[in-house]
Amino acid sequence: MRFGALEAGGTKMVCAVGTEDGKILDRVSIPTESPEVTMPALCQYFQDKEIAALGIGCFGPIDLDRASATYGHILMTPKLAWRGYDICGYFSEHLKVPVGFDTDVNGSMLGECTWGCAKGLDTAIYVTVGTGVGVGVIAGGKLLHGMQHPEAGHMLIPAREDDPYKGKCPYHGHCLEGLAAGPAIEERWGAKGQALKDRPEVWELEAHYLAYAVTNYIMILSPKKIILGGGVMHQEQLFPQIREKVTQMLGGYLQTKELGAMDDYIVPPSLGDDQGILGALKLGMDALEG
Amino acid sequence: MRFGALEAGGTKMVCAVGTEDGKILDRVSIPTESPEVTMPALCQYFQDKEIAALGIGCFGPIDLDRASATYGHILMTPKLAWRGYDICGYFSEHLKVPVGFDTDVNGSMLGECTWGCAKGLDTAIYVTVGTGVGVGVIAGGKLLHGMQHPEAGHMLIPAREDDPYKGKCPYHGHCLEGLAAGPAIEERWGAKGQALKDRPEVWELEAHYLAYAVTNYIMILSPKKIILGGGVMHQEQLFPQIREKVTQMLGGYLQTKELGAMDDYIVPPSLGDDQGILGALKLGMDALEG
Repeated sequence: MRFGALEAGGTKMVCAVGTEDGKILDRVSIPTESPEVTMPALCQYFQDKEIAALGIGCFGPIDLDRASATYGHILMTPKLAWRGYDICGYFSEHLKVPVGFDTDVNGSMLGECTWGCAKGLDTAIYVTVGTGVGVGVIAGGKLLHGMQHPEAGHMLIPAREDDPYKGKCPYHGHCLEGLAAGPAIEERWGAKGQALKDRPEVWELEAHYLAYAVTNYIMILSPKKIILGGGVMHQEQLFPQIREKVTQMLGGYLQTKELGAMDDYIVPPSLGDDQGILGALKLGMDALEG
Repeated sequence: MRFGALEAGGTKMVCAVGTEDGKILDRVSIPTESPEVTMPALCQYFQDKEIAALGIGCFGPIDLDRASATYGHILMTPKLAWRGYDICGYFSEHLKVPVGFDTDVNGSMLGECTWGCAKGLDTAIYVTVGTGVGVGVIAGGKLLHGMQHPEAGHMLIPAREDDPYKGKCPYHGHCLEGLAAGPAIEERWGAKGQALKDRPEVWELEAHYLAYAVTNYIMILSPKKIILGGGVMHQEQLFPQIREKVTQMLGGYLQTKELGAMDDYIVPPSLGDDQGILGALKLGMDALEG
């Protein structure tokens, strides 16, 4: 059986067709323009692929409440053309297949839980650190939805004493995204992260903020695995620093087998860059099962 | 059918017998001494009560991993006599009924979900602010367990600029418990909370810390209801201040119907002081169902 997968991002839409065993048979990338331009192009791609269902991992915020009149819609995004857009409804109507829908980061979490390094775990988190910070959560074997979905990238955290930066987030200033996402790195240091590779002070501070956040995710969610992905995490020197700082910040309070094996606890994604599209594929498979 | 319920605390053990409809038929309170003294007394209470199962809401940390060799044991508590104690095993052996087991705060959360103000909600939190800060979490309809249970009272938060207090937590200094639990209030201001009722600056600062934490619980867990209980929350003037500060701290980033009705979103417990013992009763009922 074939399933459609869509990783819906603010810059590009990655479309793929795959099978139940997590094999991607075909994929294309389409630039994200307005819904009027982009949605017919996406439908055209999926139309003749004989898919049994479609799964969408979507930029947020999105409405995931099945009891809501706007279930499957994109909510208050700064991408104005997409604000309030009924993305699920459009696909349901035009493709006439079941549509699974979740956030892009919950999708990546699901990909890692199904075919990656979090396979078999009922509680874990996937953090992406890039243009923003997003967090996907699986808790008790289910992707976490509450009154909305987690927005854990906007967790409030304090600026470190030696960091006078005011924070990039227009809502919170000093939240994780405001202090540690790519645009914050660029504004604080005056260059993009890639150009700062040889400045250890950049990554020591970045590791501090990420470790502070990870420590709190541990306290609140008790995840069995923490996956850190996204463009900023391509700076691989961050991983050992984050692991060390998390251990320090926990202060010996928690003693678990997972925390005793930090190299296997705080890890990069295991599916190359395919965790998102594979998660969308699984969302499609789950939608067919109802 | 009758069920046993035990609220196991560091100071006292509350034992009760109740029925499926959440009615408590009988209850006693027994001081917490060593297991050798206390456990036989607890067993004696339950022994002739014809209970079909026993539920325990227990002080932590505890082992909730059913695959673990120490499932049902108390872990690294500062209460030395109870460290490593197999509390579930003792009751299973002596009462010969199914035993349900969770943290005291997950128990209170379950009580509120079953018979209280969180009835019917699949995602919510119960925070107790007293000698320490504990947080019970229901996510996707299940009490949250991960590598352990949440320890969200130890979320790291910054001291406010006008608060020179170093924090009471021996592990973290500036975590929620270290800055906002009863002993922190007493050490910072030189008197117990009850004696500080007429000092508005005490409660304004307390509301700040609790609001900072609640804001982060919202970002990470997206709960549909936030219940704040425990001795410190008997200072009812905290509630309006916390609601106002949470709204400010969220900065308009999230727009949900729950946040639009703050008086109904951040609330005191709804079951008098019975949420804990009723939750333990439900843990017993669930244990019988397996």
